[in-house]
Amino acid sequence: MRRVFIAGVGSTVFGRHLEIGIEALGIRACELAIRDAGVDRDRLGALYLGNFVSGPLLGREVLAGIVADGLGLGAIPCTKVEGACASGGMAFRHAYLSVATGQCEAALAVGVEKMTQADTTQVTSALNCAMDHDQDALAGLTFPGVFGLACQAYMDRYDLRRDQLSQVVRKNKFNGLANPLAQMGDDLQIDQISGARLISDPLRLFDCCPASDGGTAALLVSEEFLPSIKHPVEVIGSAQTRGNSTIGGQRDLCSFSATIAAADAAFAQAGITPDEVDFTELHDCFSIAEIIDSEDLGLVPRGMGGHFAAEGRTSANGDIPINPSGGLLAKGHPVGATGLGQIYESVQQLRGQHPNQVQGAMVAMTHNLGGTGVACTVNILRMHGA
Amino acid sequence: MRRVFIAGVGSTVFGRHLEIGIEALGIRACELAIRDAGVDRDRLGALYLGNFVSGPLLGREVLAGIVADGLGLGAIPCTKVEGACASGGMAFRHAYLSVATGQCEAALAVGVEKMTQADTTQVTSALNCAMDHDQDALAGLTFPGVFGLACQAYMDRYDLRRDQLSQVVRKNKFNGLANPLAQMGDDLQIDQISGARLISDPLRLFDCCPASDGGTAALLVSEEFLPSIKHPVEVIGSAQTRGNSTIGGQRDLCSFSATIAAADAAFAQAGITPDEVDFTELHDCFSIAEIIDSEDLGLVPRGMGGHFAAEGRTSANGDIPINPSGGLLAKGHPVGATGLGQIYESVQQLRGQHPNQVQGAMVAMTHNLGGTGVACTVNILRMHGA
Repeated sequence: MRRVFIAGVGSTVFGRHLEIGIEALGIRACELAIRDAGVDRDRLGALYLGNFVSGPLLGREVLAGIVADGLGLGAIPCTKVEGACASGGMAFRHAYLSVATGQCEAALAVGVEKMTQADTTQVTSALNCAMDHDQDALAGLTFPGVFGLACQAYMDRYDLRRDQLSQVVRKNKFNGLANPLAQMGDDLQIDQISGARLISDPLRLFDCCPASDGGTAALLVSEEFLPSIKHPVEVIGSAQTRGNSTIGGQRDLCSFSATIAAADAAFAQAGITPDEVDFTELHDCFSIAEIIDSEDLGLVPRGMGGHFAAEGRTSANGDIPINPSGGLLAKGHPVGATGLGQIYESVQQLRGQHPNQVQGAMVAMTHNLGGTGVACTVNILRMHGA
Repeated sequence: MRRVFIAGVGSTVFGRHLEIGIEALGIRACELAIRDAGVDRDRLGALYLGNFVSGPLLGREVLAGIVADGLGLGAIPCTKVEGACASGGMAFRHAYLSVATGQCEAALAVGVEKMTQADTTQVTSALNCAMDHDQDALAGLTFPGVFGLACQAYMDRYDLRRDQLSQVVRKNKFNGLANPLAQMGDDLQIDQISGARLISDPLRLFDCCPASDGGTAALLVSEEFLPSIKHPVEVIGSAQTRGNSTIGGQRDLCSFSATIAAADAAFAQAGITPDEVDFTELHDCFSIAEIIDSEDLGLVPRGMGGHFAAEGRTSANGDIPINPSGGLLAKGHPVGATGLGQIYESVQQLRGQHPNQVQGAMVAMTHNLGGTGVACTVNILRMHGA
C-alpha cells in the first residue's frame, strides 16, 4: 500500500438547495476540491460518488458518470457506492484504495444528497431503504425508532440522565453556530432540548439530525504530488466493515460491532491509539449515537459518554473534542455527503483554519455509520510533517 | 497486480421470481457460487453487490450488507456499486481489484435485480434513472428511444436491412431456447420479428430485451487457491470506463466511446487481440446494441454487424460467436445482475459445460454497458492452463 494524501477538499453549505439539482451539487463540490488541490483534472484516474436515496427520492441514478461528464473528466472509471448513511465514507475509502493500490495517482471522492424537497413521510420512507424490510421494517421500525430503543437500553444499563443527553445536543448545536456550512447551529438551553417535542421515546426533536441537501468532495493523491500541495494531509488509517443488518441481530443495543471492527483496523494501520487522536468527527445522527460511537471508538470509557459531554470534555476546547463541526445534529445530514463532510471539516482543522479550531490539532478521526450499524468506515488523518 | 481466478459461479434462473425477495435472490446466487468454488466462506475478504433500481422500485437499499448478513460473513467491507445497466460488471470489477491489489485473497461479486412485480410504466420510469434528467429525460427520451435513434442513425449510414436486424434477434432467441436460465428463448421466424409490434421506430417488440428478476454471483480468488480449484478461469483483462451521460453529448450515435476505451484497456492488459477471443457475451439490450457493440469491441468491421449475423458468423458455431447464452434479448435483463450473468455463462463455456457450447472455447470476453453509454466494463477470461 502506497502513502495517500488529501490534496484538496470542497463543500457546499449543508441545508436547503432547492434551486439546483443533485448533479450540480456534486459538480460544485468537486470543482471546489479540484481548485483547492491545485491538481489538473486530467491527472484524475478514478471518481467515486457516495449517494443513498437519489433513486427513490429523485428518480436519478448513475450520478458518478453524470458528475464526471459535468467536470469534463476522461474515460476513467466512475462508480457510485452505496452503504446507507455510510455511503460518503465508502466513496472516500474507495478513492483512497485506488491511489493506495496504484490504480491511479489521483482520485476524486464526492458525496451528495438532496432531501429537503421531499416531505417528512417521503424522507422517512426513503431512509427506511436502509432497513431489512423482511424483518425490522415489517415490525414497524424507523431509524428514530432504532435509536430510541438504543437510548432506552443505554439508559437502562448505564447511569445516563436526560440533561446529560441534552448536553451532547447543546455542544453540537453550539459548535454549528460558528460553522458557515452548518444547517442548524443554535444556542439552546438544556431545558429547551430536554422539553422539546417527543419524537421516539426518549429521543426528542433536537436529539435528531435534520434532513439536508449538500455535496462534499475530497481529492486524494499519491506521494509524487507532495511537492506541489500546500497543506497535505495524510490518510494514515482507513477501514470499512459491516455489522448487523437488523436490530434483532444485534447482541447489544448499546454498541455497534461494525464501529469497533473498523476502529480496530484503522488504528492498527495507523499505528496509534485513541488517546493520540486530537479530535473526532463521528456519526451523531441522534444524540445517543454520539455517546455510543465515542465509546465504540475507544475515546470514552463505557457508560461515560454522557458524563464526559456534561463535563465539557468533548467540547472543541476539551481534552477529547468530538464533532467540533457541529456534527450531523447541527451541520445536517445529507446522507451520501456526510462521510465526506467529516473529511472536509477534519482537513480544515488540521490546516488550522476551522471556525471552532481545536488548538494544535494534528491527528483527526472520522466515523461514518450506516443503517442499523450494517456498514461503517473509520479514517485517521494526520497533518503531513506533524 | 496479482493474478486473479474465478473459482466458482452461481445463478438463479432469469425471469419471474415473485415468491422471494431481492435479498434472497442475491443470497441464493452467492450460496451457489460458494458451493461451486468449494472455498470456505470465512476466507472471503470483500463483497461487492451490483444493483440499479432496487431503491426506486422496491424501496430497498444497503443490499450488500444484508446479503452478507444472510450468508453469515465476517465484518468485511460490503459495498453496493451502481452504474446503471453496468452495475453487475462494476461489482465484478471491484471484487477483481480487491484480490488483484492484495486487499484480500478471496472476494464475492454478486448482481441482483427484481423488476417483474412492477408495471411497465414503473419499470420505464425506474430505468430512466440512468438518464440525465436535466437534458435527455426532459426532452422525453426513454431507453427504447435512445436505441431507436441509434438504429435510425446506423441504418442511415450503413447498409443495414430490417431482415438483418431480425437475424440478430433470431439467433439470440434461438440460443436462449437451450439455456435453462433464459427467460424468453424462442424459435422465431424472421417475418414474426420484422412484423412485430412497433416499440420505438425502427425497433419492434423482439428487438427489445425483457425486464427480469435474477441474481448471479462469482467468487474470485488469488493464486494461492489454485491447487484446490477444479476449473480455474483466469481474469486476464478487466477494465471499467465512462462515456457520455447524454445522447446530445455523443459525437456518434453508431458507437459508444466507453466501450472502445474499455476494450482497448482490457485487450492491452490481456496482451491479446480481438481475433484471439473465442466468443463474446455482450450487452444486447436491443438488437441494434449487439451490432454496435460487436463493432466497438473490434470483433466485426464497422457497418458489418448485421451482415455477419445474417451470414451466421456470430452464431454459436460461427467463427465469431456472440451471445451464445441468448444474451439480454433472450436470457433477460435483470439489470444489476446482467454483467455477472455474462461471467456465469462464460465460465460454463470455458468449462465446456454450456448448452450452446462453443467448440474448444478457451478465451471469452464480456461487455456490460450502462445508460447512454455512460459506464462500461469489459472483461477477458481464459481457461487456466489453456
